[in-house]
Amino acid sequence: MQAELVRLLVHRGSFTVTSETRRQAVDIRPQVEEAVLAAGVRNGLLLANCLHTTCAVIIADSAGESIGSIVRLMRSVIDENQAYRHNDLRWSDCERGNATAHLRASLLGHGVMIGIADGALALEAAQSILLTEWDGPRSRTVDVQVLGV
Amino acid sequence: MQAELVRLLVHRGSFTVTSETRRQAVDIRPQVEEAVLAAGVRNGLLLANCLHTTCAVIIADSAGESIGSIVRLMRSVIDENQAYRHNDLRWSDCERGNATAHLRASLLGHGVMIGIADGALALEAAQSILLTEWDGPRSRTVDVQVLGV
Amino acid sequence: MQAELVRLLVHRGSFTVTSETRRQAVDIRPQVEEAVLAAGVRNGLLLANCLHTTCAVIIADSAGESIGSIVRLMRSVIDENQAYRHNDLRWSDCERGNATAHLRASLLGHGVMIGIADGALALEAAQSILLTEWDGPRSRTVDVQVLGV
Repeated sequence: MQAELVRLLVHRGSFTVTSETRRQAVDIRPQVEEAVLAAGVRNGLLLANCLHTTCAVIIADSAGESIGSIVRLMRSVIDENQAYRHNDLRWSDCERGNATAHLRASLLGHGVMIGIADGALALEAAQSILLTEWDGPRSRTVDVQVLGV
Repeated sequence: MQAELVRLLVHRGSFTVTSETRRQAVDIRPQVEEAVLAAGVRNGLLLANCLHTTCAVIIADSAGESIGSIVRLMRSVIDENQAYRHNDLRWSDCERGNATAHLRASLLGHGVMIGIADGALALEAAQSILLTEWDGPRSRTVDVQVLGV
Repeated sequence: MQAELVRLLVHRGSFTVTSETRRQAVDIRPQVEEAVLAAGVRNGLLLANCLHTTCAVIIADSAGESIGSIVRLMRSVIDENQAYRHNDLRWSDCERGNATAHLRASLLGHGVMIGIADGALALEAAQSILLTEWDGPRSRTVDVQVLGV
């Protein structure tokens, strides 16, 4: 559909997100869209990933109810009553520690790839980009790498 | 194998998949391979992702039995008896609604990155690309973005 | 930071990892870092994925305890007492077979995308790249594709 040869642009940027509670999902699509504009890339690929091991970046429905559901789901899938060991702590300590946070982050994934088409993210309106926090409140860095023309 | 730049190709295409039941996994590797041919890219990267929040794209074993297993797995992991709330509906309504579909899609991921080498997908024969449908039957759009030389 | 095109580099390499037990997580970040050096790419994107359907590549905390936790988690999430069918075997055979391995690999994902910035992986020190083995011991091939300048 499109085959250009022009100028390859490689752009890297980052932004900070501050979570306010232990477990939270924050919609970062606006910040990622800003990064696309800053890169000046019209067509290409974008990687948004978090530089931490206890949060994750996913694409999900943007409705507030869905965000709450993801938090509930991960609490169910990564059972806090299971003895996932971390630093030889038992569960009660683990949950105060962050073994379950590591597991939730690994299962959801550290980042997402998104296409860039005609200067915009190749996503539908309902697709939010969520930073899911599992060990907050904290300040988190999201890295955005853009490659394209 | 290393290639200097001659011509960077950026190609975007899409195709439609129609699911026939509520939950289904459809092998879309043939359509993705066609997109590689259409792009004319010999070496590079490809992103295949679905522009929806209740289906997912994954790489998995192509055997029919495995596809059935993934459906069973997700029904087990995202427990339909759990009260994942969506629009204030209770479970029985949720399952008729699509809260569980959103969760299953988020956990599996919206898309996959695949290398392109010598004009073909850098995948083994057993690795299928599956569109996993969690809220069908529906018509789904898969977006394919290719970057390379 | 934004760089115009000088020379686009497309590099593909691969390396082998030999797992020693049935279920294991192996830190492959050193080998991936070598691939970045071999590619000679200073800024761009990297895809590391395994060419198999019963292992997965993820980014996770590098502590040994965490690796053990991931194995425990996946044994919990993909319940070995569930009858995930594969080749018409019952559970006891499945676990000796590899149906659960396929499911664990699909849920974790076949590969990861990582940014390359100033000649290094755009990851924090705590972020390891793990090959998670679910049907070992085996020899596994990891494919590394690099695109950038």
